[in-house]
Amino acid sequence: MTIRVGIVGISGFGGGEAMRLIASHPSFELIYAAGEGSAGSRLMDRFPGVPARLAELVIEKWDPATLPKLDVLFASLPTGASAEALARVSKDVKIVDIGGDHRYVEGWAYGLADVWPARIEGQTRVANPGCFPAATLTALAPLLVNKLIEPGNIVIDAKTGISGAGRGGGGTFGYAESNENLVPYSPLKHVHMPEMAKTIDLLSGGSAAGLVFTPHLVPMTRGILATIYCRGRATTGQCLDAARRFYAGRAFVRVTDQPPQTKWATGSNLAFVSYAADPERNLVIAMGVVDNLGKGAAGQAVQNANLICGLSETAGLDGVPVWP
Amino acid sequence: MTIRVGIVGISGFGGGEAMRLIASHPSFELIYAAGEGSAGSRLMDRFPGVPARLAELVIEKWDPATLPKLDVLFASLPTGASAEALARVSKDVKIVDIGGDHRYVEGWAYGLADVWPARIEGQTRVANPGCFPAATLTALAPLLVNKLIEPGNIVIDAKTGISGAGRGGGGTFGYAESNENLVPYSPLKHVHMPEMAKTIDLLSGGSAAGLVFTPHLVPMTRGILATIYCRGRATTGQCLDAARRFYAGRAFVRVTDQPPQTKWATGSNLAFVSYAADPERNLVIAMGVVDNLGKGAAGQAVQNANLICGLSETAGLDGVPVWP
Amino acid sequence: MTIRVGIVGISGFGGGEAMRLIASHPSFELIYAAGEGSAGSRLMDRFPGVPARLAELVIEKWDPATLPKLDVLFASLPTGASAEALARVSKDVKIVDIGGDHRYVEGWAYGLADVWPARIEGQTRVANPGCFPAATLTALAPLLVNKLIEPGNIVIDAKTGISGAGRGGGGTFGYAESNENLVPYSPLKHVHMPEMAKTIDLLSGGSAAGLVFTPHLVPMTRGILATIYCRGRATTGQCLDAARRFYAGRAFVRVTDQPPQTKWATGSNLAFVSYAADPERNLVIAMGVVDNLGKGAAGQAVQNANLICGLSETAGLDGVPVWP
Amino acid sequence: MTIRVGIVGISGFGGGEAMRLIASHPSFELIYAAGEGSAGSRLMDRFPGVPARLAELVIEKWDPATLPKLDVLFASLPTGASAEALARVSKDVKIVDIGGDHRYVEGWAYGLADVWPARIEGQTRVANPGCFPAATLTALAPLLVNKLIEPGNIVIDAKTGISGAGRGGGGTFGYAESNENLVPYSPLKHVHMPEMAKTIDLLSGGSAAGLVFTPHLVPMTRGILATIYCRGRATTGQCLDAARRFYAGRAFVRVTDQPPQTKWATGSNLAFVSYAADPERNLVIAMGVVDNLGKGAAGQAVQNANLICGLSETAGLDGVPVWP
Repeated sequence: MTIRVGIVGISGFGGGEAMRLIASHPSFELIYAAGEGSAGSRLMDRFPGVPARLAELVIEKWDPATLPKLDVLFASLPTGASAEALARVSKDVKIVDIGGDHRYVEGWAYGLADVWPARIEGQTRVANPGCFPAATLTALAPLLVNKLIEPGNIVIDAKTGISGAGRGGGGTFGYAESNENLVPYSPLKHVHMPEMAKTIDLLSGGSAAGLVFTPHLVPMTRGILATIYCRGRATTGQCLDAARRFYAGRAFVRVTDQPPQTKWATGSNLAFVSYAADPERNLVIAMGVVDNLGKGAAGQAVQNANLICGLSETAGLDGVPVWP
Repeated sequence: MTIRVGIVGISGFGGGEAMRLIASHPSFELIYAAGEGSAGSRLMDRFPGVPARLAELVIEKWDPATLPKLDVLFASLPTGASAEALARVSKDVKIVDIGGDHRYVEGWAYGLADVWPARIEGQTRVANPGCFPAATLTALAPLLVNKLIEPGNIVIDAKTGISGAGRGGGGTFGYAESNENLVPYSPLKHVHMPEMAKTIDLLSGGSAAGLVFTPHLVPMTRGILATIYCRGRATTGQCLDAARRFYAGRAFVRVTDQPPQTKWATGSNLAFVSYAADPERNLVIAMGVVDNLGKGAAGQAVQNANLICGLSETAGLDGVPVWP
Repeated sequence: MTIRVGIVGISGFGGGEAMRLIASHPSFELIYAAGEGSAGSRLMDRFPGVPARLAELVIEKWDPATLPKLDVLFASLPTGASAEALARVSKDVKIVDIGGDHRYVEGWAYGLADVWPARIEGQTRVANPGCFPAATLTALAPLLVNKLIEPGNIVIDAKTGISGAGRGGGGTFGYAESNENLVPYSPLKHVHMPEMAKTIDLLSGGSAAGLVFTPHLVPMTRGILATIYCRGRATTGQCLDAARRFYAGRAFVRVTDQPPQTKWATGSNLAFVSYAADPERNLVIAMGVVDNLGKGAAGQAVQNANLICGLSETAGLDGVPVWP
Repeated sequence: MTIRVGIVGISGFGGGEAMRLIASHPSFELIYAAGEGSAGSRLMDRFPGVPARLAELVIEKWDPATLPKLDVLFASLPTGASAEALARVSKDVKIVDIGGDHRYVEGWAYGLADVWPARIEGQTRVANPGCFPAATLTALAPLLVNKLIEPGNIVIDAKTGISGAGRGGGGTFGYAESNENLVPYSPLKHVHMPEMAKTIDLLSGGSAAGLVFTPHLVPMTRGILATIYCRGRATTGQCLDAARRFYAGRAFVRVTDQPPQTKWATGSNLAFVSYAADPERNLVIAMGVVDNLGKGAAGQAVQNANLICGLSETAGLDGVPVWP
């Protein structure tokens, strides 16, 4: 059965990656694409390598009133830009919102797919986690659920490739200025903090009140690593075991003995987690790696769409990471 | 029907990319992998993102005497290292040699798949073109066949990402030395010249005696661009038309009005070609872009394997390029 | 004696590099800086590493009517933006125009400083060569003057780091889009062609009528390599000898046996040239490397300013290239 | 007065940067260079942009018995390789050891030049701090001295460019493998921990027993950022004020309101520090940026040499950072 899908925000990096994944998906057919900057152009004008059958699809100006008959809509719009418009989309259309407007909003499932797929199956509205939360929460969940760390004393030092700043970031993040430059930003203030704190609360039954989060821009295109400093008395082995049990049978999370590297995930929906602990210092370091456009955006969105459409969770997501 | 395939040289970049493509191929099953540096390790030790079903496959020491029963063997060995050993492989095993030892060797088809698929179908031994020839000849073929340029007066200025230097190149091509560095090398002497000259002769019916070829290492991982300066009186439009006719119905070559960029092809088996001509100056500039590990190595190898196995030429090769 | 200098266009990459060089110059004192985007900010706001004595200098809005008393003005404005305004600057102020408006304009010396310093000394208006011409002409001059190549049959394949696209290019040349991407552009049409053709004419006494020039953007911040294909019967040794004689006693041009690499020049005013020839093929390949912001812009501008101020040509320019 | 200096370990990145700085130093004259891999070659063979007066200096095999008469020797050898040999150098030769063998060894001053210059002046043996400690301790010193943070509860998340892995790292850190890759390593085990803990003890009068340190390799050539999570009740303003007072009149440390970026320091001996605090969360984040080859190695080494030679601390170190 073919499932008709559309993408809003196709010109952005998240929307483009959704297109790439949908184009190879065995059940999804892309029949609608909308974008601001690119309205009026054909898909092949923006993506010269798009398959021939999609090449002539014309990108439309985004207007929920003129949607064709769709089964699933992927929305990848800047935070603040999607809430009003998506509210006008028919209830018959399932929506996965890659953007930030519907996280922990009533009526929307928070799509942390590897951690709680059962909360997502059967829903029609899913809010995709942010890219930093995807890397962070995937690494923390097994520790929180097993009470191996204190939820109230977590320090997240996160590093992202520059595509995380979005395509609109081009003016600020020119190549010459960003290359060979490592930039911390928004210490103590990043918009992804509330969804992380809320999820930590839910997973731990405790409170993430003291959460500290510092994002950094790294001179690479894709990839996120979260290095997370926690308090707890578990050993490295206990943390790894807890994660292996937690993710047993799950397709997309790999628990590794070695610290994970961002390049392991490039182009895929995989997440890699590892741990290093020192009980004598009351310390657990959790590390989580994702491709910020994969598990951190479009990959997890397709996974969520699979879940709400009753497909295999891995449909269209079995690509091996690109290396080197 | 499942086709049993093996890869020799899995630790190298070409062999690794072959593994990535084969892992997603609908008809190929990887049952054998061999490598020098990695013998004894499991596939997941070298490729942390490999699918679970391949994760435990143990990489063997390469020895043609101990091959399991295979239908197709991909060989990705350094030039000079494959001729003797591959001669000892059973004739029942089809071979695609990604390395350089069998190009224009008797008994081996030269696998320029987009240009002359009929020369490849039905063969059992195929020599994959080099990465520079793949980019160059794909761009030149329509001009040569249509006699729009002089075969004896061609200057190829080629630029490759550093993965083209091979994994063994790590010692010489460290990150700190290679980053922010553009390096011309081997002017007038590169090993890819003979196969390019021979193919130009075949396509044109003339002689490439004066061929000039200068390769450059560019600080990026993947991608090749060949900028080729030719003599001819055709217009830009005539060149584009000739290429569009030549590649009509072919899956992997895109003829574009704009000069092609290497990132258009990343991770795919696509080639992009374009032209800029000035009849008054007796000048035709041909431009060809490929991913050096895709069309320039493993992608074209899988395409060749498809052809000699009687499969659809595009099987396992429909991935959309990774962008950005 | 202190020479009072000003910079117009301080926010751009060329202007910023001029600031860097002037800050370490033994005779120049920066007393005026103007810029569009940065007017009103202090120098330290734009350049956090600026020396303390310059930190509080306020960047002004560019207006030739409000210039302080200056000895030398460096102008680094977009092409088309400087001609009218610079015409209003007092004749008592020497000007070096890093931008493109005054190249081969009457009353302005063409500041190809390593090739013809005598044409620059004693002038008060110098037009700095473009970055591509700086790399190209430095490599070609010894061949042209010695009639080792035909001036009418020159093909220039040039590659530049992305800072060559200018700071204003940030919107088009975002990191994520430009990284891992090699882009040919403006084939047969680049604005630097006329000044190259004119200089080739002057050096050779012949005509560069057939000149071909293709620029490429390379994913690195700084550096230019011009690979230049010429017709001639000289040997490699004859070309190297001609260059060594031509540049004997000159401070900034290094003639090397090996093909030059862009990183050799980073941060300096050096140019590296080398040659590879094959008399049997009637072929001479000339290669020239510069830092596009050094010899290709601010470095050569300071060299020109030294020449017109009667200083040592190397004053303030003896920094060793940054490596790695 | 000319001070005769030598460099041991000239082929490495630290030794090469020392050469670059010494070549432009007003009082130092390089008369001796030794290296393993490069012995027998001329300086210009390894550093094509070296000034003409140094070009023909032949690199010798390192042997303390054959040293010429020197005033200062810079040693930049792998950790473990310098202790025995340097013990055999005459007491008349001042030594700055950029390597790790003499940090907190009796008879050697720990050369944290911006923090305690008085401990270095008049010494003849100085152990340069490691690159991570240089970034970290410069940021922490004002907080520790002013008791604004708890010394026993410090988490250092540090990120370095790949030149920090050393030139010998080329085999492991090939371009293609390292590009677009962010790699945490040695969690809880890095060799720089003891010198950081010892210095924290000295500065605070307390104990750094619980110190946590995680280094990361970032795909860039140069630069270190340490993001440091501390416990304390100070405000952001109090931290900034403390640092401004602490470094008042010091030449190389800049205290900035904004989080510092690695590119601000490239090619210079500068350090940038900033702070973000939240008293309600009992949290102080300190951030320190240096060029790992500048303040993190050769820059600080020259500063230390200036101090022990009685020169101005800034001699030869006034270069403005290279940007972009």
